[in-house]
Amino acid sequence: MNKEKLYNVILKKQSFLCVGLDRDIEKLPQGISKDVEGLIKFNKAIIEATASYAVAYKINIAFYEALGTEGWEALEETVGMLPTDTFNIADAKRGDIGNTSRMYAKAFFEKGNFDAITVAPYMGKDSVTPFLEFKDKWVILLALTSNVGSQDFQYLELKESGEKLFERVLKTSQEWGSHENMMYVVGATQAASLSNIRKIIPNHFLLVPGVGAQGGSLEEVAKAGLNEQAGLLVNSSRGIIYASAGTDFAEAAGKEAKKLQTQMAKYL
Amino acid sequence: MNKEKLYNVILKKQSFLCVGLDRDIEKLPQGISKDVEGLIKFNKAIIEATASYAVAYKINIAFYEALGTEGWEALEETVGMLPTDTFNIADAKRGDIGNTSRMYAKAFFEKGNFDAITVAPYMGKDSVTPFLEFKDKWVILLALTSNVGSQDFQYLELKESGEKLFERVLKTSQEWGSHENMMYVVGATQAASLSNIRKIIPNHFLLVPGVGAQGGSLEEVAKAGLNEQAGLLVNSSRGIIYASAGTDFAEAAGKEAKKLQTQMAKYL
Repeated sequence: MNKEKLYNVILKKQSFLCVGLDRDIEKLPQGISKDVEGLIKFNKAIIEATASYAVAYKINIAFYEALGTEGWEALEETVGMLPTDTFNIADAKRGDIGNTSRMYAKAFFEKGNFDAITVAPYMGKDSVTPFLEFKDKWVILLALTSNVGSQDFQYLELKESGEKLFERVLKTSQEWGSHENMMYVVGATQAASLSNIRKIIPNHFLLVPGVGAQGGSLEEVAKAGLNEQAGLLVNSSRGIIYASAGTDFAEAAGKEAKKLQTQMAKYL
Repeated sequence: MNKEKLYNVILKKQSFLCVGLDRDIEKLPQGISKDVEGLIKFNKAIIEATASYAVAYKINIAFYEALGTEGWEALEETVGMLPTDTFNIADAKRGDIGNTSRMYAKAFFEKGNFDAITVAPYMGKDSVTPFLEFKDKWVILLALTSNVGSQDFQYLELKESGEKLFERVLKTSQEWGSHENMMYVVGATQAASLSNIRKIIPNHFLLVPGVGAQGGSLEEVAKAGLNEQAGLLVNSSRGIIYASAGTDFAEAAGKEAKKLQTQMAKYL
């Protein structure tokens, strides 16, 4: 999916909501079997309940890999169920030497038909650029993550420029692609840094996890993060997929998604 | 596998050779079908030909993921063929927020029965520690990689201490685990930095890729990297698995592995 199409979907649905599909198989709701079939059934119900409000889905690959071959099948099946008008993200945090990153790109863009993949920046340019060679496919590079461990290295100040490591990642990586094939992960728990980040990358889309369960505020994120072409995908996983542990889980998920979409429409 | 057992295997085989199993399915040698069955057959032959000389195997997960569900099956089958006396590494470069890293740990340590997994440090402590909760399982953290892109961020100097980012990664991460459950990736192409790295982490094992195809020298690596309990696993992938494109590929691989082992015995 290219940037124009993504923006059009955002306008049409009046939403920049990304729904994260990372349900733990052992915690599936009432009435759903705690196995791979149950997981697929669950994902199907969640997708149907949220498709009107979501412009993107983010699949957390770890939750499928943990199930072995069966999990890989469930992943393929889930990807097949995603709407064709949404921007579909493999949250995989990959990144390796060139020939290996190329293999991961094949896995997610050719075999998996995702629109985007999250990539870690530590190994530098040649670990990222192989993902950029696919038309209308995107890299979502980790810049500032939403977890506590983001404090360990991402905020370190650099000697020459005084900038922080994540700022350097933003600056350096801009030379690898453009705002038409790269986005950045910026945790909602880091909203204070968002305005500053917007100065460095005014035109790029940001994928913002951490709203809800991890404590980020949608209003703060929207105020600091929105740009002329929206420029934001705000992810909610637990707030939606764990909205109810009962048999009404899909209805509850739809309700939560709608609530977020309604808020988002105001900010757009 | 614990550290003592690993050291004993190294002494017994007089080797610190790790063989990388990352053959591109489209480049399988003569006489082998270019499909998943061929890949499994190839891996089996390589493992049998090198098992006397290798103390570790490193499976590059990307090369299997790129094949979809079938690839995941080939991966499980390959893991099942690995010798029980070797240290088996999932080269996966994973790392995510805590609950997700825990899922990856399950994928590779419970479903996959690997001894170790490579992990990227960018997301900090809580992305790494979930992997350390498994008995006799290891994290191999990226410190200084062998690719050109390692120059982009890993060598950046930090403001307060003047140390480089990779040095800070080495220091900070020592508080997360010990030399009994953590190793570090240090590219052989960075041998000049190895003596310095040994000062920071005298007791940890280092996994050293990049000898051979990527240009690193075994002698330099051994001189700067060996410690009292060996402390080194030197990986060779392409030098061994691409030793011949003919039907004698296994024999050629065994010969290359033996050559490296013979050299290693001298340094031990």
